[in-house]
Amino acid sequence: MPSIIELTKFITSEFNRALKLFPLPKQPEYLYGPIKYSLKGKGKRFRPILVHLSGRKYKVDPENIMKVSLAVELLHCFTLIHDDIMDSDETRRNMPTLHKQYDTSAAILAGDGIFTISQLILNGIENKPTQLLLSYNQAVLEICEGQALDKDFEGKDDISLNNYISMVEKKTGALLAACCYLPAILAGEAEETIKILQHTGKHLGVAFQIQDDLFEIFGDETAMGKSLGSDILSNKKTAIAIESKKCFQSEWNEIVEEFDGKNLAKLRKFLVDNKIKKKVQDIAENHFFSAYDWLIQLGFDKHSELYKFIKIIQERHS
Amino acid sequence: MPSIIELTKFITSEFNRALKLFPLPKQPEYLYGPIKYSLKGKGKRFRPILVHLSGRKYKVDPENIMKVSLAVELLHCFTLIHDDIMDSDETRRNMPTLHKQYDTSAAILAGDGIFTISQLILNGIENKPTQLLLSYNQAVLEICEGQALDKDFEGKDDISLNNYISMVEKKTGALLAACCYLPAILAGEAEETIKILQHTGKHLGVAFQIQDDLFEIFGDETAMGKSLGSDILSNKKTAIAIESKKCFQSEWNEIVEEFDGKNLAKLRKFLVDNKIKKKVQDIAENHFFSAYDWLIQLGFDKHSELYKFIKIIQERHS
Repeated sequence: MPSIIELTKFITSEFNRALKLFPLPKQPEYLYGPIKYSLKGKGKRFRPILVHLSGRKYKVDPENIMKVSLAVELLHCFTLIHDDIMDSDETRRNMPTLHKQYDTSAAILAGDGIFTISQLILNGIENKPTQLLLSYNQAVLEICEGQALDKDFEGKDDISLNNYISMVEKKTGALLAACCYLPAILAGEAEETIKILQHTGKHLGVAFQIQDDLFEIFGDETAMGKSLGSDILSNKKTAIAIESKKCFQSEWNEIVEEFDGKNLAKLRKFLVDNKIKKKVQDIAENHFFSAYDWLIQLGFDKHSELYKFIKIIQERHS
Repeated sequence: MPSIIELTKFITSEFNRALKLFPLPKQPEYLYGPIKYSLKGKGKRFRPILVHLSGRKYKVDPENIMKVSLAVELLHCFTLIHDDIMDSDETRRNMPTLHKQYDTSAAILAGDGIFTISQLILNGIENKPTQLLLSYNQAVLEICEGQALDKDFEGKDDISLNNYISMVEKKTGALLAACCYLPAILAGEAEETIKILQHTGKHLGVAFQIQDDLFEIFGDETAMGKSLGSDILSNKKTAIAIESKKCFQSEWNEIVEEFDGKNLAKLRKFLVDNKIKKKVQDIAENHFFSAYDWLIQLGFDKHSELYKFIKIIQERHS
């Protein structure tokens, strides 16, 4: 039996091959040029890997697993393109974001096109239950709601940790959850199983997003593939910002005001010295534990592939 | 039997009622507020009417006809929202466009949300053939391609009438075609029937778009619900612009250069005196005739509802 590391490497390379071979027209260049550009960036493929591991567990036909994994990665890509416009982000996966490389119009349209292609891929799965596309699109609407809350929170000053968790459950959790349960829907598993996989993925999503928020400040710029500190600059209500403000309001306001996108050292020191970093890490850990709990309730054990892969996510450094 | 006018009025009011009753959450306001705003604008509902008339012909369950008609109108609304951002348009259906009323981020997200809701509506139709959603999303991708060509043409000076026709077949024709053939797919009609309905809708789409291009210059601002002449300002390659440039290059360039969005009189006189208006009207007429021809080939006669409704479109003044 291959180790989980070998297995995920294999899945990643097979997935990248399938994505590269995915037939896209050449014309119109205004649409497909930007789409191809945005698919060139090598992501970590966490979402396709989740789909494959869940699909293996529920014995889904490998061809259909690949289709679902392509669809969710394209969906992810679509949300990144539109979010990057909304957040005026300039770098993604070590490349200029799509609206920087081309322009906003081309990026809006490329996002729309990629999302539509993801629907076409799922539409093309034969003998699928009705529930597959219904759940997929419900997840997309939840992602839109999460992004709406995130944008809305930017202008507000009274966002609680619970508000934040509800937001990331939608913005990040809904898609990771879909990765876990879509293969089970394809396999015709019971509703209860789907629900538990959804809980697993949502907790994983919250933990994952909090990790990402930490990497945004404590990470390595090259490994992250984008500039750091942008959450602070755009007044994003991350768990870090919420906890800092709750306990050290005036100091935090001062640090945020001073922050110019470069002087990360002072920010980092503040978060470490005041144990905010530790506190936020603990919140993420707790959500990882909830994800494991749900998995175990479903009969997965510590040696199962999905469990071990979530462990890999938990221990990631970027 | 009700007259076609009475019938389309009835369909419009039933459709508006269904749209108004369509359940949308209140929260998050950042997403659903703009969505509700964009659905408030009273369109002419040509697309839902086409769906209903085709659905009546093929004896589709009325509840499913309504679902398809809601889906296509939401899809239309989504494309208008994103196109208005891309074209920097400020007025639509006599109201500020969504990105003007809110901002670009809210408008991008509302478009994504509306499009996703349209998928959910179709996903919710029971016992539908796989082909329904496949054809729907193929039409959406074609619309994206059409919009891409339209944007691409803005920067080009060698666009022919044939290029223009290919573009509007996608940008406008793909959706009108879908309105004609989606009910037939639901009814399980033969592939040949679907294809002929597609041809009908595409010709109707080209004719309809050319009419719209003419209204953009010769129409009434209030009836159009938007400011006129914006195609000239943004260097859109409409049939009018292409024909004018082909026959009267230097005069046309002068008129375009002088045009400030207000002095429509000179532009109109040029197009009438030089018979460009007549020529372009004739092109539209020819496409209407092709649409009728295909319909007749399919066994519709001059007294059929769909035929008579296309006649109404042909004779519209806005």
